[in-house]
Amino acid sequence: MKGILYAVGVGPGDPELLTLKAVRVIREANVIACPSKDNTYGVAYNIALRACPEIASKEKLLLDFPMKAGDITIAHKEASERITKFLEKGKSVAFLTLGDPEVYSTFSYFSDMVCEKGFEIEVISGITSFCAAAAGFNIPVSIGSEAVLITAGEYRDFDGTLIIMKAGKKLVQIKEKIREHGKKAWLVENCGMPDEKFYYDIDSIPDTTGYFSLMIVKG
Amino acid sequence: MKGILYAVGVGPGDPELLTLKAVRVIREANVIACPSKDNTYGVAYNIALRACPEIASKEKLLLDFPMKAGDITIAHKEASERITKFLEKGKSVAFLTLGDPEVYSTFSYFSDMVCEKGFEIEVISGITSFCAAAAGFNIPVSIGSEAVLITAGEYRDFDGTLIIMKAGKKLVQIKEKIREHGKKAWLVENCGMPDEKFYYDIDSIPDTTGYFSLMIVKG
Repeated sequence: MKGILYAVGVGPGDPELLTLKAVRVIREANVIACPSKDNTYGVAYNIALRACPEIASKEKLLLDFPMKAGDITIAHKEASERITKFLEKGKSVAFLTLGDPEVYSTFSYFSDMVCEKGFEIEVISGITSFCAAAAGFNIPVSIGSEAVLITAGEYRDFDGTLIIMKAGKKLVQIKEKIREHGKKAWLVENCGMPDEKFYYDIDSIPDTTGYFSLMIVKG
Repeated sequence: MKGILYAVGVGPGDPELLTLKAVRVIREANVIACPSKDNTYGVAYNIALRACPEIASKEKLLLDFPMKAGDITIAHKEASERITKFLEKGKSVAFLTLGDPEVYSTFSYFSDMVCEKGFEIEVISGITSFCAAAAGFNIPVSIGSEAVLITAGEYRDFDGTLIIMKAGKKLVQIKEKIREHGKKAWLVENCGMPDEKFYYDIDSIPDTTGYFSLMIVKG
């Protein structure tokens, strides 16, 4: 019998934000796969470890996804091949991913490759960083008939709520446009992690913040 | 000491999609508040009950939110007053809500009223129906630099992923526009509930579906 690949969203950082299903699947999986850099465990693994310390003794599969454009397709192909080797042996693999596996996640890049080889995949949803950020500020992502636009690091003038993921790099330009359009803004850095930091208005938001910076913009 | 109001997202339907935090907060709360119709427990309560059967013996607060425009503001005011009566006595209240408390939720309408009375609120994020739908289909909500637009029942031509919540009522018009723009569509009815139904393409989607219908549209 072939193994199943589980894509498990571990949420934004707080280990208590894992779902009951995520915890069960991680506990039952034979192999824990996770993004890794230089052979060290990544952020997603460390969140899961705090919720399920027993995974420390499980078989691991560390997958390196370099950011350089040329190497990344090779890395996705390699990840799918390394995962399917376990699935062929009948082992189930839990691939851990920050937030939700379908929202700006590495998993989406190699998921089809694993499917095409005839293996079953099950996706376990996770709490997204923008839900956790809205919870932290207690401001609605959407209310009534309001629409929501989510972008990867880009300001767009929008009649509704704008969520800017990975906002840290272009903050000077983004802040300029928010002021120009007379909008309100909230920013959270490292949401759900021990060093999370909340900024409640445009004037308090610095010009540069870390990679995990998320902005909520309202009219 | 004053009680705290917890807004708890119970996710889209599967009780295993509650977070560890949601389960803990529900178990620890003195009072379980939930939307109700004609004095019966609503959908959110029944999801939470399957994850935490012990809540059956807790004190309950059933809150009626009629859909008629004239009554709804009165209902929100009444909900905040009934909740704060418990908070004043030092009792903690867990208000249960489908999906996430900040995404198209009743909670957002009376949250400020409770805050203004000087009570503390903590929001516990839940899995949104669109993440669960994307997981069920295993199609990315967003990948790379793709933007996402979420609307309440409305089609908009959009260069990215369009999520239409509560799509059931206007399906004939929505389907017409999707065909006109040559887009792909997926629809899920009652996502995460025992009677959930997945439709994988525009031709198989019926002209009317239930209230809890969610559509994913891609270019």
